Amino acid sequence: MTLAKPIEWLGDRVRILDQTRLPQEEVYLELDNYRDLASAIRELKVRGAPAIGVAGAYAVALGALQIEARTKGEFLESLRGVVDAIGATRPTARNLFWALEHMRRVAQAIEDVAQTKAALVDEAMKIHAEEETATRKLSQFGAELIKDGFTILTHCNAGPLATAGYGTALGIIIRAKEQGKRVKVLATETRPLLQGARLTTWELKKAGIPVMLITDSMAGYFMRRGEVGCVIVGADRIAANGDTANKIGTYTLAVLARENNIPFYVAAPTTTIDPALSSGEEIPIEQRNAEEVTHIHGSAIAPEGIAAANPAFDITPHRYISAIITEKGVIRGNYGEGIKGIFRRV
Amino acid sequence: MTLAKPIEWLGDRVRILDQTRLPQEEVYLELDNYRDLASAIRELKVRGAPAIGVAGAYAVALGALQIEARTKGEFLESLRGVVDAIGATRPTARNLFWALEHMRRVAQAIEDVAQTKAALVDEAMKIHAEEETATRKLSQFGAELIKDGFTILTHCNAGPLATAGYGTALGIIIRAKEQGKRVKVLATETRPLLQGARLTTWELKKAGIPVMLITDSMAGYFMRRGEVGCVIVGADRIAANGDTANKIGTYTLAVLARENNIPFYVAAPTTTIDPALSSGEEIPIEQRNAEEVTHIHGSAIAPEGIAAANPAFDITPHRYISAIITEKGVIRGNYGEGIKGIFRRV
Repeated sequence: MTLAKPIEWLGDRVRILDQTRLPQEEVYLELDNYRDLASAIRELKVRGAPAIGVAGAYAVALGALQIEARTKGEFLESLRGVVDAIGATRPTARNLFWALEHMRRVAQAIEDVAQTKAALVDEAMKIHAEEETATRKLSQFGAELIKDGFTILTHCNAGPLATAGYGTALGIIIRAKEQGKRVKVLATETRPLLQGARLTTWELKKAGIPVMLITDSMAGYFMRRGEVGCVIVGADRIAANGDTANKIGTYTLAVLARENNIPFYVAAPTTTIDPALSSGEEIPIEQRNAEEVTHIHGSAIAPEGIAAANPAFDITPHRYISAIITEKGVIRGNYGEGIKGIFRRV
Repeated sequence: MTLAKPIEWLGDRVRILDQTRLPQEEVYLELDNYRDLASAIRELKVRGAPAIGVAGAYAVALGALQIEARTKGEFLESLRGVVDAIGATRPTARNLFWALEHMRRVAQAIEDVAQTKAALVDEAMKIHAEEETATRKLSQFGAELIKDGFTILTHCNAGPLATAGYGTALGIIIRAKEQGKRVKVLATETRPLLQGARLTTWELKKAGIPVMLITDSMAGYFMRRGEVGCVIVGADRIAANGDTANKIGTYTLAVLARENNIPFYVAAPTTTIDPALSSGEEIPIEQRNAEEVTHIHGSAIAPEGIAAANPAFDITPHRYISAIITEKGVIRGNYGEGIKGIFRRV
C-alpha cells in the first residue's frame, strides 16, 4: 500500500494533507509560518497524537527560522513565545509536549543562533523519523497478537494519518494483513467529528482491508454476538500507571470488551506515555466547541439553543486494558512496573 | 406543558405529526388510506413502540372502512391482507403485533360487516386511550424512583411523541418535575437517526426541563464522573424473562450503568411485554438501510462504497436492568415471576 503522507518537511515549509477535507477531497496545504501550522493543529487539519507531536516540532522549526535575533538570549526569548503558542493548541496529546520539550532542550544546547536554527530543523526531522520507526516497530509487536480470521474493532483513527508514520492501531492491522492473516475491521464512526467514518475507512480501503462502518452505539451489539476478536485503539496520553486518555468513547469500548471477554489493546509509541502523571485523573481533557455536537456538516441536528457537551477524550482505567503495545515491546499486567522498565531502557 | 399530539383520529382519517421533519418543521399529515399510514410507520414518520401500536390499530380501522365486502367472509379475507401489510412494516416493536391481534379478535367477534367496521374504529380509539392512560400511570410509578436534584440519562426518544400518550422514560421525568423535583437530562443524540438530538431535546425544551445533548459515545464519560443519577430508557419489546429490546446502544448504556453502580430503568406499558418469548434471543431485530449510517441529512460521511451495518435495536439482558416500570407497577428482581404476576392480574 502507498502510505498517505500527512506531514512532509520541504526545507523551509511544511506540506500537510488537510484531514478535515477527507474523504471528499485530498487537499495539501503548504505552510511556511508556524502560526498557520499551529492553527492547522487546532483545527484538526493535522490530528492524532503522534502526528500532532511531529507537526508541533516542525512548527517550532518554522518559528525558529523566522526569528530575527541579534543574540542567543533574544532568540530564546522569541522561541519561548513560539513554543508557548504551539503548546496552547491542544492540551491532551502527550506527544506534542514531549516534542516541544525536546525542541526546547536542543535550542538551549548551542550558542550560535544560525547553528541553533539548523539544529532545530534537524531535531524536528529526527522526531518525525523516529515516530515513523516507532510505529513500524510497534505494529510488528502488535501484529503478533492478531489471529488469522480476526475481526478487529477500532475507534477513531489511529492510522498513518494520525501518526505521520505507519499507524498504531491501524498499523498493527495493516502489518497483520501483510503477514498473510485474513483480517476484517469494524470501524466506529466516532462522533462528533467522524474520524472513523471519514479517515479509518479511507485508509483501510486504500490498504485493501475489508471494513464495516458502524455507529459508536453498535459496538456492544457486535461484541455481545461474539463477532469481535479484539479491540485496538490508539492513545493520546498514557499515565505512569497505564491509565489511557483516548478519543471520547474509548472507555465505553473497554468496559464492553471486558464484559464480553474480548482483549482490549492500546497501541502507542512511548512518546505518548507521560511518566510524570501518576494516574489518568491528572490528564487534562480537551473540551471542544458544542457546535461540533449540535451540527454535522454544517447542518443543525438539534433545536436551536440546546446545550451540548463536547469532551474530546475520556480516560480508560488501566484495569480494562489487556496490553499496551509500544515500540519497546508489549506491556501487560503491572503497567506501573512495565512502564518504568521501558523508561529505564530508553 | 402542552403535549404534542403525534397521532389523532379524525373520524375517517388519521392526523400524524411527521417526526422525520422535527425539530426543523412541525408538519402534520392527514392520511385516509391504510397503505399511507403503513408507509408512515415504515418511514418513521410515526415511531416509538407504543405509538407504532396505536398507529397500527388506526391503520387497521382505516383499512376496514375501505373494504367493500358482500359477506363477513369476504371482509375478513380482505382484512387479513390489511393486517399483514401493517404487520410487515417494522418487526421489533411488540406493541404493533399486540394491537393487530386485538383488532383481529374484534373483527371476528361480530357477524355484521358495518357493525364490525364501527367496532374496529372503537377498538383502535380504545387502544389509543388505554396507552395514554398506561403511560400516565407508569410515569407516576417511575417518578417515585427519581430523587430531587437527579441528572437522568436517557437514550433515543421515549416521550409523548413515541407513545401517543404521556411518554415512558420522558413521561417519568416530566412527572418528577411536576412533583416539584429539580431534574436535569443528559440526552444521547442516538445515531444513526438522531431521535435523541431531534426529538428528546425538542420535547424537554417544551416541558421546560434542562437538557444537555451528548453523543452516544459520551455517556460513559459522564457516568464515570458520577454525574448521572439514573438511566431511564423505553423499550420496543420485553421477553418473558425481562430481556429488553430497545434502540441500538441501550445494551451499552446498561453495561456502563452497572459498571458505575447507577440504576438502569426500563419504562414501558405492558403492551410492550411479549410473554410468548422466553428470552431476548427470540426477539427479531430490525436491520435497516446502510445509508442511514453512511449519510447524515443526505450528506455522505464515509468514502463511497464503504459497507455499513445498521441493526436498529439491541438486547439488554435482564440482569443489567434495575427495574422495569409498567402501568401495573414496578417489577424488580425475578422478572420472570414479576411479569407472570402482572399478566395474571390483567
